[in-house]
Amino acid sequence: MHDDDVVPADLDFAATEKGAAKVKKILTGEGLFCEFIAPRLWEHPKTIDGGYTANNPAERKYAIERSKRAVDIAAIMGCRDIVLWLAREGTYIREAKDPAASVGRIVDAVNALLHHDPNIRILGEMKPNEPMGQAYLPTVVHFMGLAYRTADPDRVGVLIESAHSILAGLDPSDDMAYALWHGKLWSVHLNDQNGLKYDQDKVFGSVDLRRAFNTIWVLERGDYDGCIGLDVKAMRCTKAADQTQHLANSRALFLDMLALVRSVDQAKVEGFRAARDYEGLEMYILKMLLGR
Amino acid sequence: MHDDDVVPADLDFAATEKGAAKVKKILTGEGLFCEFIAPRLWEHPKTIDGGYTANNPAERKYAIERSKRAVDIAAIMGCRDIVLWLAREGTYIREAKDPAASVGRIVDAVNALLHHDPNIRILGEMKPNEPMGQAYLPTVVHFMGLAYRTADPDRVGVLIESAHSILAGLDPSDDMAYALWHGKLWSVHLNDQNGLKYDQDKVFGSVDLRRAFNTIWVLERGDYDGCIGLDVKAMRCTKAADQTQHLANSRALFLDMLALVRSVDQAKVEGFRAARDYEGLEMYILKMLLGR
Amino acid sequence: MHDDDVVPADLDFAATEKGAAKVKKILTGEGLFCEFIAPRLWEHPKTIDGGYTANNPAERKYAIERSKRAVDIAAIMGCRDIVLWLAREGTYIREAKDPAASVGRIVDAVNALLHHDPNIRILGEMKPNEPMGQAYLPTVVHFMGLAYRTADPDRVGVLIESAHSILAGLDPSDDMAYALWHGKLWSVHLNDQNGLKYDQDKVFGSVDLRRAFNTIWVLERGDYDGCIGLDVKAMRCTKAADQTQHLANSRALFLDMLALVRSVDQAKVEGFRAARDYEGLEMYILKMLLGR
Amino acid sequence: MHDDDVVPADLDFAATEKGAAKVKKILTGEGLFCEFIAPRLWEHPKTIDGGYTANNPAERKYAIERSKRAVDIAAIMGCRDIVLWLAREGTYIREAKDPAASVGRIVDAVNALLHHDPNIRILGEMKPNEPMGQAYLPTVVHFMGLAYRTADPDRVGVLIESAHSILAGLDPSDDMAYALWHGKLWSVHLNDQNGLKYDQDKVFGSVDLRRAFNTIWVLERGDYDGCIGLDVKAMRCTKAADQTQHLANSRALFLDMLALVRSVDQAKVEGFRAARDYEGLEMYILKMLLGR
Repeated sequence: MHDDDVVPADLDFAATEKGAAKVKKILTGEGLFCEFIAPRLWEHPKTIDGGYTANNPAERKYAIERSKRAVDIAAIMGCRDIVLWLAREGTYIREAKDPAASVGRIVDAVNALLHHDPNIRILGEMKPNEPMGQAYLPTVVHFMGLAYRTADPDRVGVLIESAHSILAGLDPSDDMAYALWHGKLWSVHLNDQNGLKYDQDKVFGSVDLRRAFNTIWVLERGDYDGCIGLDVKAMRCTKAADQTQHLANSRALFLDMLALVRSVDQAKVEGFRAARDYEGLEMYILKMLLGR
Repeated sequence: MHDDDVVPADLDFAATEKGAAKVKKILTGEGLFCEFIAPRLWEHPKTIDGGYTANNPAERKYAIERSKRAVDIAAIMGCRDIVLWLAREGTYIREAKDPAASVGRIVDAVNALLHHDPNIRILGEMKPNEPMGQAYLPTVVHFMGLAYRTADPDRVGVLIESAHSILAGLDPSDDMAYALWHGKLWSVHLNDQNGLKYDQDKVFGSVDLRRAFNTIWVLERGDYDGCIGLDVKAMRCTKAADQTQHLANSRALFLDMLALVRSVDQAKVEGFRAARDYEGLEMYILKMLLGR
Repeated sequence: MHDDDVVPADLDFAATEKGAAKVKKILTGEGLFCEFIAPRLWEHPKTIDGGYTANNPAERKYAIERSKRAVDIAAIMGCRDIVLWLAREGTYIREAKDPAASVGRIVDAVNALLHHDPNIRILGEMKPNEPMGQAYLPTVVHFMGLAYRTADPDRVGVLIESAHSILAGLDPSDDMAYALWHGKLWSVHLNDQNGLKYDQDKVFGSVDLRRAFNTIWVLERGDYDGCIGLDVKAMRCTKAADQTQHLANSRALFLDMLALVRSVDQAKVEGFRAARDYEGLEMYILKMLLGR
Repeated sequence: MHDDDVVPADLDFAATEKGAAKVKKILTGEGLFCEFIAPRLWEHPKTIDGGYTANNPAERKYAIERSKRAVDIAAIMGCRDIVLWLAREGTYIREAKDPAASVGRIVDAVNALLHHDPNIRILGEMKPNEPMGQAYLPTVVHFMGLAYRTADPDRVGVLIESAHSILAGLDPSDDMAYALWHGKLWSVHLNDQNGLKYDQDKVFGSVDLRRAFNTIWVLERGDYDGCIGLDVKAMRCTKAADQTQHLANSRALFLDMLALVRSVDQAKVEGFRAARDYEGLEMYILKMLLGR
């Protein structure tokens, strides 16, 4: 949940606490839990030039204070994770901000949150552009590189969304493997994207089944134990009555891929690899996908 | 076959005729036929600045004369079609040639070939770049638009290669449907490509099964009756003994897709369309692909 | 102007005529004229699945009737041109419509308008995606190819917008040269775009000065005599008081480029070309751009 | 220099030492020095499946031994830096290797070199693809993230090449600013690239002057004090006599950009930033570029 999904932004601590406790109770009553809180630093007038990287010091301060309040909300909601989707931390023209100073300011903000609450973890979720022309941290890999320079690297990791990797020209399964190697893959959003264009949030697996298969294979082999979110949108022409079908479809495809991944004959795969017979391996995988 | 796959370039007519007749005989003896002849206008020193669009008039003349000779070879080989892959008809910097004049020069060249032999057909095969920085006719759609301005539009069409469409940011199935509507899809090369990068010529269907399915579906519904070529390359790390496996794999995947396409319940598809239930349609297609 | 910028959509003819005449009078009073009318076929509920290519016959009919009404508005406003930006003529998934039939339906719609008014010209404005996942006519080149198959090819041409060409992976100057060669470049929208991502509508020339220079050079050499529009958007972080600055900047850069283009020493350019000295030519152009 | 530019690969230590000392003497005699040694791990038959990430343990061993020998050559040549361009550390199909294990193997190799010579520094140079379909470390940012997990992070940094950043969909100036912030930008290769396609190595600044300006501005503000290389290629159509012109042009454009950068009125820039007047700032920069 975004911070202002729980309680309106900019309430004082007492009102925030009361509101958050109320939402927590509703969730618990439904058998649900809140995975993370994400401060929404891209709609408030004070974040129009970015949050942590705004040129105006008062706006940078607002962004950090609001993020600390999001940490408080997380604590009240009983969740450990803060997700930073740094939507406006970038520019429309390269000259608008100092890029090296901006990187430093993002690290300072992360440190401020790490200090604010010794139990919280910070997860970066990155996208190369939109709404900004160009983000300062266009990939989760940028965020992971910074993690090691924060005050507590063990509490800084990432949330990877398939479509964001694709928009960055990267392969989601490779991104996830890289993050798993670092021990920093703490949340995953599955969806799909048809090439380099506007952000589409399509049904998981709907564009490229093999890429979806490899994504789940990497998660399964890497013993990923975090949450799986389905960050998908209905097509713009979908009828009102069908507005949740894309969620059901994404879940069905996820389960299909999981079943396939668990049926892989790993010895066979290693045989193809040892023989450097990648054409053979390719057909083994494609036939499995096609159910042949 | 390229013209110089049949006989060395720049032989006189008598030697060309003799050599081509010999190759024709070999093919016939094997039960094979030659689908088309393509003048190789990108390796000879006189084509270094392009063939038909070279700035040097002597080089433009060479390109046209050599293309006429390719038409002669086609006639001797008993084949009707000339394929123009205009590999060097473009520039590395936009200022190097006049772009409107270059378009006109390509039309002039096509006309020269149409006049040279009243039976021949001309098929454009287009790629947006590589070896050139930017081609003048980056897509088959550019060539089709010119067809109507040639001396005999009915004898000018296209060869579509899946990966070339993908490299141009287009969908091969849409390109083929557009060409079929024009009655100008006369040859098809199937392969695959993983995004915008160097030209990969991967196994057909190996990157995106759904795109491969839609390609064959369009060909089948459009009653395509030309040849199907598999323009694929082995991976660079493939062992010598496996150097034809990618061809067998492409053929197998083509047949798989054809079988799937022929099993589509078209009434069901029309039902989803009439109900504007594209999420339902999507799952119908994906389940079919997955063999579920 | 869009049709519903002039009068609300779906009025009867009498009310439409009265409203349009009123707007015409205002424009004339200000010394302005309306270049074209564009039917807005992407916001009305009946166009949610596309206009001319909707699967529902009633919706296709609505789109054509509304377009005819736009033609009537143009006539009343004293303007000759109809611009078709076919925003929703595509799909989110390839299986949703028949692509070849869709091409035919667009041609039918163009013919209906050509028949409705013998004086009107139809200009296609194309974009590869957004709001759709994939458009049926992703480039103006697709539209030009269809022009020759309409009832009156001489009245069918294109409007080219720089950023749309860039989004399609094409060079705007090459697109314009191609259209000028066809005699079909009837309107131009200048702006800029930083790579393959969401549609940005940046200040003309702000991303790539050399591309802007070549665009104007092609227009100038090709004796382009249509209107030049500046289809640009302010940055999302621009202050309210500066909301027209991007227009002034685009105009200033256009005039800068025009002055540069008119100062080109064409004999020098031809000298470099004749010598195949493209490195020399490149530096000549770059030094000119840099004002050295 | 590549290791085998100095002495043929696979000589024994004595022969290597003798050959390298000879080359060192020639360079010194010409007043030159060798900036770095790069083991060429992509042409030898034993590196066909990658060097450090090959599936065959004997091939991985070869790659590490050869890299150690490159370190020896560097020591003899009196240079401190080893550049790792990991050309084949990736795959053509995702299933061919284990991606997380591959990341670990690259770190192991870096550690082996750090241990082999306590004075050497390791610089990663990254490219997203070509010759591989997809690299495991597609950007320098991936390498920087690993640096912190090596045995001696202070001796692990990067070489950034403009065109490689562009091929990865990133901005070279942002990449350099990110690396400067980390204190890890130790070498720079300048060139240019026209979009997402094959690797072009064009003249620095020839595609996008503003991007070139920003690149030099970042280097200058960040007090970059390493070498600047010009990794450019002549156009394929360049005459034999002009085969060094692209180098002279790149150097001239670099010096032009440096002069412009040094003439920036930083107070003016800060004024625009403080006022959030980015349209004003944009025009200030563009007019400077145009020499107005």
